[in-house]
Amino acid sequence: GQPLLLLAGPCVLESGELGWEIAREMKDICARLGISYVFKGSFDKANRTSLRSFRGPGLEKGLRQLGRIREEVGVPVVSDVHEQGQVEMAAEVLDIIQIPAFLCRQTDLLVAAAKSGKTVNLKKGQFVSPWDMEHAVGKLRDGGCDRILLTERGASFGYNNLVVDMRSLPVMRGFGCPVVFDATHSVQLPGGTGGSSGGQREFVPTLARAAMAAGIDGLFMEVHPDPDKALCDGPNSWPLDQVEPLLRQLLAIRAALDEDQNG
Amino acid sequence: GQPLLLLAGPCVLESGELGWEIAREMKDICARLGISYVFKGSFDKANRTSLRSFRGPGLEKGLRQLGRIREEVGVPVVSDVHEQGQVEMAAEVLDIIQIPAFLCRQTDLLVAAAKSGKTVNLKKGQFVSPWDMEHAVGKLRDGGCDRILLTERGASFGYNNLVVDMRSLPVMRGFGCPVVFDATHSVQLPGGTGGSSGGQREFVPTLARAAMAAGIDGLFMEVHPDPDKALCDGPNSWPLDQVEPLLRQLLAIRAALDEDQNG
Amino acid sequence: GQPLLLLAGPCVLESGELGWEIAREMKDICARLGISYVFKGSFDKANRTSLRSFRGPGLEKGLRQLGRIREEVGVPVVSDVHEQGQVEMAAEVLDIIQIPAFLCRQTDLLVAAAKSGKTVNLKKGQFVSPWDMEHAVGKLRDGGCDRILLTERGASFGYNNLVVDMRSLPVMRGFGCPVVFDATHSVQLPGGTGGSSGGQREFVPTLARAAMAAGIDGLFMEVHPDPDKALCDGPNSWPLDQVEPLLRQLLAIRAALDEDQNG
Amino acid sequence: GQPLLLLAGPCVLESGELGWEIAREMKDICARLGISYVFKGSFDKANRTSLRSFRGPGLEKGLRQLGRIREEVGVPVVSDVHEQGQVEMAAEVLDIIQIPAFLCRQTDLLVAAAKSGKTVNLKKGQFVSPWDMEHAVGKLRDGGCDRILLTERGASFGYNNLVVDMRSLPVMRGFGCPVVFDATHSVQLPGGTGGSSGGQREFVPTLARAAMAAGIDGLFMEVHPDPDKALCDGPNSWPLDQVEPLLRQLLAIRAALDEDQNG
Repeated sequence: GQPLLLLAGPCVLESGELGWEIAREMKDICARLGISYVFKGSFDKANRTSLRSFRGPGLEKGLRQLGRIREEVGVPVVSDVHEQGQVEMAAEVLDIIQIPAFLCRQTDLLVAAAKSGKTVNLKKGQFVSPWDMEHAVGKLRDGGCDRILLTERGASFGYNNLVVDMRSLPVMRGFGCPVVFDATHSVQLPGGTGGSSGGQREFVPTLARAAMAAGIDGLFMEVHPDPDKALCDGPNSWPLDQVEPLLRQLLAIRAALDEDQNG
Repeated sequence: GQPLLLLAGPCVLESGELGWEIAREMKDICARLGISYVFKGSFDKANRTSLRSFRGPGLEKGLRQLGRIREEVGVPVVSDVHEQGQVEMAAEVLDIIQIPAFLCRQTDLLVAAAKSGKTVNLKKGQFVSPWDMEHAVGKLRDGGCDRILLTERGASFGYNNLVVDMRSLPVMRGFGCPVVFDATHSVQLPGGTGGSSGGQREFVPTLARAAMAAGIDGLFMEVHPDPDKALCDGPNSWPLDQVEPLLRQLLAIRAALDEDQNG
Repeated sequence: GQPLLLLAGPCVLESGELGWEIAREMKDICARLGISYVFKGSFDKANRTSLRSFRGPGLEKGLRQLGRIREEVGVPVVSDVHEQGQVEMAAEVLDIIQIPAFLCRQTDLLVAAAKSGKTVNLKKGQFVSPWDMEHAVGKLRDGGCDRILLTERGASFGYNNLVVDMRSLPVMRGFGCPVVFDATHSVQLPGGTGGSSGGQREFVPTLARAAMAAGIDGLFMEVHPDPDKALCDGPNSWPLDQVEPLLRQLLAIRAALDEDQNG
Repeated sequence: GQPLLLLAGPCVLESGELGWEIAREMKDICARLGISYVFKGSFDKANRTSLRSFRGPGLEKGLRQLGRIREEVGVPVVSDVHEQGQVEMAAEVLDIIQIPAFLCRQTDLLVAAAKSGKTVNLKKGQFVSPWDMEHAVGKLRDGGCDRILLTERGASFGYNNLVVDMRSLPVMRGFGCPVVFDATHSVQLPGGTGGSSGGQREFVPTLARAAMAAGIDGLFMEVHPDPDKALCDGPNSWPLDQVEPLLRQLLAIRAALDEDQNG
């Protein structure tokens, strides 16, 4: 079948060097494993819990970093946009335009992303049922977009907690789009630690394995060489030096499912 | 004590006449009842479930309608903004700038609204705990805003349903801002009827009475002379000709609480 | 209209003296306020979080205590049963037999309670929708019971938390049974403090006022002269010396609603 | 590693022949696949939504059926108990005594099951967090039971819906007990179809694969030769003739994880 798609990188673009280092390392790992890799990095964290949190280099500087990584490392790049005015500029650099989960119902943003001609990765809102994402997909398709990824990243479950409903994966695959599982945001504890969101990094492998076995086309992960020093989402980022063993495990599951279907 | 604050009007600005009619009627009712009234109407429904739904007159035309209602009827007006670029223009007309619930964590939008010098009505996201709204309030205050309203409109409760946690009202009042209860969006069934959100209009009085008794400073309601023909959110809009009896009942509860405290 | 019904007492029967003291005090308060009072006390807490928690005097000794309070203080009494075998003996003493929320779907227990000829107070399970309680009511009615109380005590909301959905009150009143709001269990945090359940006593008045305004026929409260020393559910029990001011406030709300309806 | 444990059979014991047929078929399948099989069948459905639903043959007749299947087919058997008085008699026949999810906090039932000397399969309540199950395990251990299975069967998620939180599997494995995933009750829609619970049979494989990859020791499934004619829980039962392909797929996932760990 198709190679696994992997969108991975730091939560926020911290420095050009860090992004470059992660992209190189991830590219090598994915080449060894036969995974189709896309570098992910946010130029701006537009919805941090607190105003005092690090937000990133901003649109222009961030896109320059992403452009350099794209060219020098030779990998496609994905980043998220927050207002329709950012889409045109972002589309000059990005291979995939990502719509944040909180914004998955903002019609203008979706239509602008659709019109960019790029692949769009639409994250399912924490407050949206899987079947209602069909309407959001419809907005993208009506806008002319036919390369759509849908990403599951957990649903609101009481306060300060998310739960991943694995039923959402086959439901969203039913819309005819590849489905991606975001293994690191799914273990966030929103607002759970005072001025920033907490996370349960220890559950990343559990949920990633479960989603792979449930059936996905791609994986999304925030990775960092030293997650405890990450400027954003450290508590749920996955350590760079543990990426390869985790991916090997996930590919073993994927191969087992393929064999079973063909056997 | 303070008079009750009421933000009410059609979900979306349908025609200038309709808005004008509702504003006149509501102003008269509120004058009779000693309620402080603000006309509410959206110029753009930026997050309709489906692309084919009516979105409204748009920013410029909508603001003109709101400006005319403000002047001719003589009532303050409130409307919602969706991107920071809309704030400046909106602030020239509006008395209160409203931040939609889905966007309550978008830092740039909050800061722009704060800098406008206007009162800001911040709706609590369906995915945010009451105590985490303190961070959003902090973003507004850091942006220079000191007239902040916080609005409860329900929390995600499984799929296609919201629940109002009445504990949120005292929690948010604890941040030192007046708290408003949105009695009509709280009975929405998000995405519950296929291509648009459903609603349970029959529960509006139940929840409004409950919130009033729990303790609120203001009420938010979408009202319409013929809700079943409303171009947006009809299933949860409250009929204009039933507004006065409902408000009388709510004021009776409010008076009972006041007497009890003073008695 | 009907006087308000109040089921109140200690969570568990601690000592004969304590129960007697609470019953006397509550009877006096309710006489002053025109409230119809029923003494509540559990003879056995059959589902404590931990085995090491105090469970109560047990069936026989507990029923003797309840019988004495009933006769000497002159108040009706309510207590909960956990297995059908307890119902017959309990029915000899109790005026109202209560079905615990966790057991609201145990057919044999419901049928045995129905056949006892006593009034049955059926608590809604934390895992049951309001409309599905109609089936449990049906089990009682088919068993020959026509005096049924339905009690709301919160619904599961993520982990270690409950939320009160005020819509449940009119829904359950629609089954033709008086509806009671349990103001103290509704603020429990199940399992929230390690080996026992936590509670948010500070929200008791908020939720009680809200439920009264939403529309209820009765109130349920666990009260204690010194909640911090209570042997069960202290964190969510209401202090005996603050019962009267709270009830006065609730009656003021009730009167306001009555006046409004008759006005 | 250990062979996979499988608890499977009809929801309720319908007739001796049906149970016998299912047990034989399942035993053969599991022998081929190297799975450790236990026949499951309820003698009494004590918490059906409606009084008019089929409840089963009852304790005595049901245990006789189970005993005959145990002896004649040569498989261990599991069934559930609902009151402590049933435990002694049940323990004379059963290899595993099961505690229903609604009753997972009923101390007397747990202690009686623990004292029986049998293995106990404790189902996690829909209203209990995974970490709070440690207290229930403690009740069993204090009662002298050291062979405990813990079963995940979904958590309350709004009304009439359950969600499986895959994080619960490693959390409960951390208590030192084998963890079982109930693949058919997890797709129930409680009370979702009027007088009985609905189900989403189509999601059984998705969730079973996900749980297997997340990490479990055993699987629980209700199977039936003709689920649409099953007298209980048909909508979420798995067809007997599709059991083997599903189990093969699950074993392939299990093997992939084992290889990966040993590779």
